Amino acid sequence: MTERIGIIMNGVTGRMGTNQHLIRSVLALRREGGIRLADGRCVVPEPILVGRNIAKLEELAAAHGVQRFTTDLDAALADRGASVYFDAATTDLRRENLEKAIAARKHVYTEKPVALSTAAALALYRRAEAAGIKHGVVQDKLFLPGLVKLRRLREGGFFGRILTVKGDFGYWVFPGDGPPAQRPSWNYRKSQGGGIILDMLCHWRYVLDTLFGEVRAVSCRGALLVDRRWDEKRRAYAADAEDAAFAAFELEGGVLAQINSSWQTRVRRDDLLTIQVDGTEGSALAGLTRCWIQPKAATPKPVWNPDERRSDDFFAQWQEVPDTESYPNGFKAQWELFLRHVLEDVPFAWDLLAGAKGVQLAELGYQSWAERRWIDVPRLEG
Amino acid sequence: MTERIGIIMNGVTGRMGTNQHLIRSVLALRREGGIRLADGRCVVPEPILVGRNIAKLEELAAAHGVQRFTTDLDAALADRGASVYFDAATTDLRRENLEKAIAARKHVYTEKPVALSTAAALALYRRAEAAGIKHGVVQDKLFLPGLVKLRRLREGGFFGRILTVKGDFGYWVFPGDGPPAQRPSWNYRKSQGGGIILDMLCHWRYVLDTLFGEVRAVSCRGALLVDRRWDEKRRAYAADAEDAAFAAFELEGGVLAQINSSWQTRVRRDDLLTIQVDGTEGSALAGLTRCWIQPKAATPKPVWNPDERRSDDFFAQWQEVPDTESYPNGFKAQWELFLRHVLEDVPFAWDLLAGAKGVQLAELGYQSWAERRWIDVPRLEG
Amino acid sequence: MTERIGIIMNGVTGRMGTNQHLIRSVLALRREGGIRLADGRCVVPEPILVGRNIAKLEELAAAHGVQRFTTDLDAALADRGASVYFDAATTDLRRENLEKAIAARKHVYTEKPVALSTAAALALYRRAEAAGIKHGVVQDKLFLPGLVKLRRLREGGFFGRILTVKGDFGYWVFPGDGPPAQRPSWNYRKSQGGGIILDMLCHWRYVLDTLFGEVRAVSCRGALLVDRRWDEKRRAYAADAEDAAFAAFELEGGVLAQINSSWQTRVRRDDLLTIQVDGTEGSALAGLTRCWIQPKAATPKPVWNPDERRSDDFFAQWQEVPDTESYPNGFKAQWELFLRHVLEDVPFAWDLLAGAKGVQLAELGYQSWAERRWIDVPRLEG
Amino acid sequence: MTERIGIIMNGVTGRMGTNQHLIRSVLALRREGGIRLADGRCVVPEPILVGRNIAKLEELAAAHGVQRFTTDLDAALADRGASVYFDAATTDLRRENLEKAIAARKHVYTEKPVALSTAAALALYRRAEAAGIKHGVVQDKLFLPGLVKLRRLREGGFFGRILTVKGDFGYWVFPGDGPPAQRPSWNYRKSQGGGIILDMLCHWRYVLDTLFGEVRAVSCRGALLVDRRWDEKRRAYAADAEDAAFAAFELEGGVLAQINSSWQTRVRRDDLLTIQVDGTEGSALAGLTRCWIQPKAATPKPVWNPDERRSDDFFAQWQEVPDTESYPNGFKAQWELFLRHVLEDVPFAWDLLAGAKGVQLAELGYQSWAERRWIDVPRLEG
Repeated sequence: MTERIGIIMNGVTGRMGTNQHLIRSVLALRREGGIRLADGRCVVPEPILVGRNIAKLEELAAAHGVQRFTTDLDAALADRGASVYFDAATTDLRRENLEKAIAARKHVYTEKPVALSTAAALALYRRAEAAGIKHGVVQDKLFLPGLVKLRRLREGGFFGRILTVKGDFGYWVFPGDGPPAQRPSWNYRKSQGGGIILDMLCHWRYVLDTLFGEVRAVSCRGALLVDRRWDEKRRAYAADAEDAAFAAFELEGGVLAQINSSWQTRVRRDDLLTIQVDGTEGSALAGLTRCWIQPKAATPKPVWNPDERRSDDFFAQWQEVPDTESYPNGFKAQWELFLRHVLEDVPFAWDLLAGAKGVQLAELGYQSWAERRWIDVPRLEG
Repeated sequence: MTERIGIIMNGVTGRMGTNQHLIRSVLALRREGGIRLADGRCVVPEPILVGRNIAKLEELAAAHGVQRFTTDLDAALADRGASVYFDAATTDLRRENLEKAIAARKHVYTEKPVALSTAAALALYRRAEAAGIKHGVVQDKLFLPGLVKLRRLREGGFFGRILTVKGDFGYWVFPGDGPPAQRPSWNYRKSQGGGIILDMLCHWRYVLDTLFGEVRAVSCRGALLVDRRWDEKRRAYAADAEDAAFAAFELEGGVLAQINSSWQTRVRRDDLLTIQVDGTEGSALAGLTRCWIQPKAATPKPVWNPDERRSDDFFAQWQEVPDTESYPNGFKAQWELFLRHVLEDVPFAWDLLAGAKGVQLAELGYQSWAERRWIDVPRLEG
Repeated sequence: MTERIGIIMNGVTGRMGTNQHLIRSVLALRREGGIRLADGRCVVPEPILVGRNIAKLEELAAAHGVQRFTTDLDAALADRGASVYFDAATTDLRRENLEKAIAARKHVYTEKPVALSTAAALALYRRAEAAGIKHGVVQDKLFLPGLVKLRRLREGGFFGRILTVKGDFGYWVFPGDGPPAQRPSWNYRKSQGGGIILDMLCHWRYVLDTLFGEVRAVSCRGALLVDRRWDEKRRAYAADAEDAAFAAFELEGGVLAQINSSWQTRVRRDDLLTIQVDGTEGSALAGLTRCWIQPKAATPKPVWNPDERRSDDFFAQWQEVPDTESYPNGFKAQWELFLRHVLEDVPFAWDLLAGAKGVQLAELGYQSWAERRWIDVPRLEG
Repeated sequence: MTERIGIIMNGVTGRMGTNQHLIRSVLALRREGGIRLADGRCVVPEPILVGRNIAKLEELAAAHGVQRFTTDLDAALADRGASVYFDAATTDLRRENLEKAIAARKHVYTEKPVALSTAAALALYRRAEAAGIKHGVVQDKLFLPGLVKLRRLREGGFFGRILTVKGDFGYWVFPGDGPPAQRPSWNYRKSQGGGIILDMLCHWRYVLDTLFGEVRAVSCRGALLVDRRWDEKRRAYAADAEDAAFAAFELEGGVLAQINSSWQTRVRRDDLLTIQVDGTEGSALAGLTRCWIQPKAATPKPVWNPDERRSDDFFAQWQEVPDTESYPNGFKAQWELFLRHVLEDVPFAWDLLAGAKGVQLAELGYQSWAERRWIDVPRLEG
């Protein structure tokens, strides 16, 4: 028996929204015939596109055989056939959109950050709970094969006691006067929810919480490295949102983490994001998809010798973790989990409270920068 | 005309002292026939070894054809034929030794840290100035070919405006229960002047000051990762000095620097120490000897794509800086400069004040750790 | 203060005796100035060569500056200045030689097998104990760097629970009609103590006992593969001692081991001897000097697919264990330990009882072959 | 003239059944237009799928354009248009299924093991003979290119007198708590026909019999290495069937063979299965597809030298046997031979008696393990 579930998808005309949420998640699930539930039912997701630019919506809908699209969010929310609202629209409107959807008693699934302040994020969570709807937040990085491999290593006891975590994220974002910038201009404007701390500390929160222990304190130093940029229309603008941040974190259980995030760094690393974990029994370094390990038994004994040109190949001393399971697209995997959460009540860990924790870490990161000190991270009560 | 200059060398029975200061510096200068001065004189250094273990001294002297050695520092200092005192003995005795040498009106050259507190280091500097002797501090890392190349890049304007500096230093020091530890046990004991902050922040001070701008503020977080170690005789001991530190620095001119130092990290990097400099016009990453660059014009435009196994070789996108000058052993180069400073008054930048700055940064690093905040670095007045 | 210790060395004109025991052990210790004891004394070993061929002895002594040599073992044993007797003469005379030496109240150190039967070996042990002399048996393979690395892996917990051990030993010994044989002809004659079971099971006993658990049962199948050989003088002879053996062992603690030994196999392996250990947490394969590991986390998931030419490089999936300590010549290391055992009573694990265990395993291996069944290995009582 | 031959295929929904027997054998023969017989007729095989799960059958049939499928074996056997019955269903039901098929006077072709006891297997053979039907057993490993190359070497006299055969089979089967297991859980349950001795000794029987001489005696030691596993649904279960076996075999003509089989070994070998043959004139090592040789004339003379890091590349000393014929998929090749046996009476060596021999060797392997002794292998009379 086949049923349908209507999903209002707001703001999927951007690159990530279109590719990851629409094409590779919702439409991919459609193409496969929907989700087969434990009770035998088969449920096919049916997207309703919402956006601000009708021409773009029309084009997108036509290209992918989507029947319904509109610029009128309220009308879409009034549709009783749609039970899920998804938000990938701009950060500054997210809270308002989600509140409307909750008021319309839709289950909500949303991109991060869920709001611009911890208080607002918590209020959203409480509102959703009070309304009795299901809610979830995209936390895609957990599904990156490289991070899945890190998690398996930790679960398998590979690291022994974990000592430190070192993360390096970023790449060179072109200011836009030469080659066009590869990120949208709102990322560099405070008033539109830009800033790498807000963007990335939301991610680091769930990555650290899930893989290594709850974040207990943060020290963060942002920097506005490039303040003159050129937007999508090649007009110069003054960037006022930080484009780099050096942060350190104390985690529950005593692990210390340090993560650099920068949109103005050139990449001489294994990947755009690398996370190195050092433990008593072994170390690992993960990129987005690959992961390398050096167990205690294969740890070389380097000696500092300034007299000789170094001949060690420090990369050859690591061994790649092989693929031993399938790594589905993380966005799709999480969409399927959320829809099962809605449809058959399977547990779903990444709710609006988890989303609020991400906002909290970003907020405290800004506070740490302003006050030039470590800030403890209070436990968020639901 | 050949003259001799007697050099009292205290504490060169250790690995670095023997190899770098004695064999590859002082004895190498001897073998080459000494230093030829601008006025035509040729001055041959003549070492007088001082230490605590007469057997070791005897063996070392015999192995390298050194005539004079003693365990009696005072007697050595009383020798009017020796005009230079060099100290590579243990950190905790350094200040006392240097004070004696200054009192004996020897020119002093010393390993770092020059003292265990900024106040003591400054006092030493003032005492040396008052005595009218010449003084210098070993600052060997500046002579590493990789860092020389960085300096040349900066001098040549390669970076444009420098944005950030990211350093990663360290390797895995074996605790000593399995393979023997490759560092001495005093490094891990506070009472003996151990600790990676004291050791390395002294270095980072002159590296940052010289290459990128005077350090203006520091945020530092140490960690005692491995507290049970085995010493040179395979006896277990409780380590109480920190073996890792995550530090950030604000530099004069606005550059932000972040440097990780750890003796418990496994090396998946180009070298045991790597320093990446990102600038508007290009980036560079230096190891001890090699250095790679990526100028603006060769900067690729990576796109975050979690769906595909990354095929970019991020290392191949950099180009190596060729060797365009000779890179003499840094210890020897600095010895020669110091001796010329003594003998013919050529300028010498790395004096006891510079040494005091290193101690200061380490001291403030500890304060930052204790107070969990950024600490401004006051200018040291001579 | 320097003393001398006289060592009667019987049968060191053969390749191993000359190279390993004389040149690289006893004479090497001489060259280094002897062994420094804990109490400060320095003891220099002084060899007295004994053999059957006076011309060979003379040549050997001359080549290496040895003063004393003789063909008269009894006369040598009568020398009260020599306190140690070492036996590397032929297997069939060993017991008699050792009995004489014990009767002369020399400390004895000997090659294996110590005797041709367990009863005789045990009797030797008891005689030595009754005489109150010190005794030791060469067990050199334990000092091979590859096996040292295996031991370190086990001590470090690398394997988790060890499941199985697979050994493959051997190489192609030329029968001697074409290229001359590279092993002596007595190895292939029963009457002279030949046979690969007698030779190698003595080794496997201490290797297995020490690395993986005491041998509790053995199943062994010998084979006489090549029965026509040519001796040192190129005369054909009928070989009657087995030149290959397939053996399996049950070890205390439940580990199962399987070792092939053959002098008629061609080597497509990492080394002449390879030992693979499979454990729940990882596997290792050691050769004589090198060792490779594959931890659980790097274990690939091969699928049997007969349709495609295999493109996996099964060797590249292993990582080499680096050298993290020095690996002195094993013969010399054991000689030094034995002499310290004699001179200052340091413990020495490899005594005549351990030697008897090796003989026992060989004897039971022959019994297993004859009776076509597993044989339990009784504990040897001293 | 084109005819059709109906083939009832029972149990081809599993990985091997679907891929090897259905797609790459029967359907491949169909696609090629069938088998052209010596008399000019062309016969196209027409599969009728039988299984227990109708949904799976439906999906499989649809995916490959198969018209007929059913869960009712009896009904299928009643179809007079089908003259061949093929069995790849579970081991525990095989005998019963085959008896039914023989009773229905179908020619039978079957996976191994043909039954769970020698007596049952022999009874099947006699029943088939009495019924006058044609019968065959899958013996796919003989068609592996690597083993074909070994056979060619033997036929060409490459080995001279064969001395020993050493086999090493296996790889790491994941227990299933981390990465999912790559073998079905019934393999590890005795009650469902699991166990590596039953599985692999059936193979080793025809491999040894065919390539090197009939097996005359067996010594086998099984082991249950991992007794806690996780099944297809990630539920823990207690494994009670052995997952490793060390076996030795005496072959007619005096060759000695030793084969390790393990599902808990990590692969540092040329392939998942390697067979090394040592002969007086040369040696060969075969994997699934490739084969390397070392003839007498190219045999190096290694010398045991524990003092030097080995620099020989023992792998480079072998030469690869080139592909000199086509190596069709072994399953398909044997299917075609069996169908020709049925259709035009060409000889077919691998009948139910050969199948019974495989079962016999497994059975005696278990007996050897239980009684801890060698067991003679009686000749099976038809």
